Amino acid sequence: MPVNLTPTPPERLRAIAGARLGITAAGIKKPGRPDLTVIALDPGSRVAGVFTQNRFCAAPVTVCRERLAQGHAIRALVINTGNANAGTGSQGLADARRACAEVARLLKCDEQAVLPFSTGVILEPLPMDRLLAGLPAAVADLAPDRWDKAAQAIMTTDIVPKARSATVTIDGHTITLTGMAKGSGMIHPNMATMLGFIATDAAIGQAALEALTRFAADESFNCITVDGDTSTNDSFICIATGRAGNPEITDTASAAFAALREAVTQLARWLAQAIVRDGEGATKFMTIQVNGGKSRAECRQVAYAIARSPLVKTAFFASDPNLGRILAAIGYAGIEDLDVNRLRLYLGDVLVAEQGGRAAGYREEQGAAVMQAPEILVRVELERGDACATVWTCDFSYDYVRINAEYRS
Amino acid sequence: MPVNLTPTPPERLRAIAGARLGITAAGIKKPGRPDLTVIALDPGSRVAGVFTQNRFCAAPVTVCRERLAQGHAIRALVINTGNANAGTGSQGLADARRACAEVARLLKCDEQAVLPFSTGVILEPLPMDRLLAGLPAAVADLAPDRWDKAAQAIMTTDIVPKARSATVTIDGHTITLTGMAKGSGMIHPNMATMLGFIATDAAIGQAALEALTRFAADESFNCITVDGDTSTNDSFICIATGRAGNPEITDTASAAFAALREAVTQLARWLAQAIVRDGEGATKFMTIQVNGGKSRAECRQVAYAIARSPLVKTAFFASDPNLGRILAAIGYAGIEDLDVNRLRLYLGDVLVAEQGGRAAGYREEQGAAVMQAPEILVRVELERGDACATVWTCDFSYDYVRINAEYRS
Repeated sequence: MPVNLTPTPPERLRAIAGARLGITAAGIKKPGRPDLTVIALDPGSRVAGVFTQNRFCAAPVTVCRERLAQGHAIRALVINTGNANAGTGSQGLADARRACAEVARLLKCDEQAVLPFSTGVILEPLPMDRLLAGLPAAVADLAPDRWDKAAQAIMTTDIVPKARSATVTIDGHTITLTGMAKGSGMIHPNMATMLGFIATDAAIGQAALEALTRFAADESFNCITVDGDTSTNDSFICIATGRAGNPEITDTASAAFAALREAVTQLARWLAQAIVRDGEGATKFMTIQVNGGKSRAECRQVAYAIARSPLVKTAFFASDPNLGRILAAIGYAGIEDLDVNRLRLYLGDVLVAEQGGRAAGYREEQGAAVMQAPEILVRVELERGDACATVWTCDFSYDYVRINAEYRS
Repeated sequence: MPVNLTPTPPERLRAIAGARLGITAAGIKKPGRPDLTVIALDPGSRVAGVFTQNRFCAAPVTVCRERLAQGHAIRALVINTGNANAGTGSQGLADARRACAEVARLLKCDEQAVLPFSTGVILEPLPMDRLLAGLPAAVADLAPDRWDKAAQAIMTTDIVPKARSATVTIDGHTITLTGMAKGSGMIHPNMATMLGFIATDAAIGQAALEALTRFAADESFNCITVDGDTSTNDSFICIATGRAGNPEITDTASAAFAALREAVTQLARWLAQAIVRDGEGATKFMTIQVNGGKSRAECRQVAYAIARSPLVKTAFFASDPNLGRILAAIGYAGIEDLDVNRLRLYLGDVLVAEQGGRAAGYREEQGAAVMQAPEILVRVELERGDACATVWTCDFSYDYVRINAEYRS
């Protein structure tokens, strides 16, 4: 069951001027389930993206990278669930381009102006006949107020659709942002996660939008893990339609840039945390905070060692303060010169370990009380520098095994 | 249930001249269960060891390292289960030394001649009163033919005691080897695993024994993983009592050294694989073989990415040839310049993927047939060099979660 996560009511999701969404059920994996989404953008929109670092990246990731690198003005996105189009070789690339070409024909734009996205099972060819047959219905459905439907249509093992809106005032103009994301398993993003999209009506230059996108990804999707598996399809896309009327933001040192970056980052962080809350089999949401490191990189290393450990994750599932497992993970995180006698480990506000062992005042009941809650803070004070990092993760339950032993069937 | 692993019948375990073992039930964690073992060595025995690289190493590991580094002639080992004496700070070190001192008093040897070993729960103080009270009974029990009892007395969540004997002829002398190991979870050794011991009556010099021990560890315990968690207590110890009558082996380029090293390595590999077969919740035993890499290190990196992936491990549990998950793991293993279009993936003898996608001749029934077996070979041909590496692991089942959610209770 998702941890403290309910669907955002549709009326609280705001349309973004210049962006329309259309959804249909193309029967890509199962009949009758919305699985195909087209997002059409008005001329003048800008798009930036970051993608998985997995060497076995999916065909649509390759196509997106190419088209964004070549600076094509993007007019549409096409997103299918039910099949990842990954591990599909040259046929997969041809299929991704063919889907874009068909969207371009229907929308009367250049085919290089379309970006493809896929999510679902790996190593199986995309069912092109059904996908192509579904596109006219998706295009016919295009409307600005379809974010709730789109958030549902991009889900795989997700239980809760993940979408949210926000507004921020910049230079006297109200800027609106709406984002959605999907992902529940194979979540250990390296650059971005399995399909996250944020659209805003802000006017912003391409270079500034790209800088903002990288920053937001690093502070959100790149700080989560469910199972330590980096997906082949991770993609995080920021769209700026430029319709809010604000003076175009081009200076990355400006207050306007900072305000928009903060708004996008907050939304991205909410979406990233929503993925963890809806992580496969999750019953607990854990924040792993590592402070006092020599660098952000080493803090992340320690945080991820804890967040990935199956032993730590099963102990959280059991609400068992078996905290030696956290110490063991800190110890094998790979920091060669770590002095374990200096660090302190807190569970919530409770000091659990210091001077290489259990804290003198610690009582098991205190740890057990913190572990009962659905949201748990693990804090490590390394006491060797000023850097810090935070990672969000979930526990490891019977249901994780069930979901992943049954997926595909 | 352990995968193709049954206890070695006691009569097939050979005594090693010069080594006696004594076991008792000291009630360290639970009353009535054998949990305390003393191994007494005749004068002239040589001992070498390798230990965990976990920075949060247990107190007994620190004491072992010190005493071996200082070149003390080792006369006894004391091993308890039920408590790891890890994350116990300065008190833990004092406790480990106190246990050794008491063994030394009972055996009338120098206290620096005793090595301590612990395994069990982390972050709880060793119950010294019960441990010290149990030592006289363990010493009174000392006899050469107790390997089967000792292999049981060092278990934690292990289901099957893991011990085995072998003989090899060197320079016309029959050399006998007997080894035992324990470990089932928190298994991802980095140098050695959670308590492995091999004793031989061979005569071998200290430097040669140390070289042999490192080699055997690298080819056995350092090639397995159950859950990716490197323990705080990993220790692998080789004992040579020198009673076989062979000329002392000192030249590491000699045929005698090679023969003994091969015998020890084979035994260590059997013990390491036995740990995987008895991995927590294991239902399948997987051999991950990566060939054609530029270096052994990168082959190990790819093999471990596959072996650690919860998605791969749950797919094996389900006998589901969801092989895209293996490609995804290869892709995120961290080899920056990997050309995924060149590599080939085999499941058993079946070519599953090549040229970046599913092999043309592959049929799902073939993959499913291989997955049904309790022992599965995954082979990756990287096609970029001559190096190779093999890693052994097990699947991820409901029982892994159950065992680790319940451990301690």
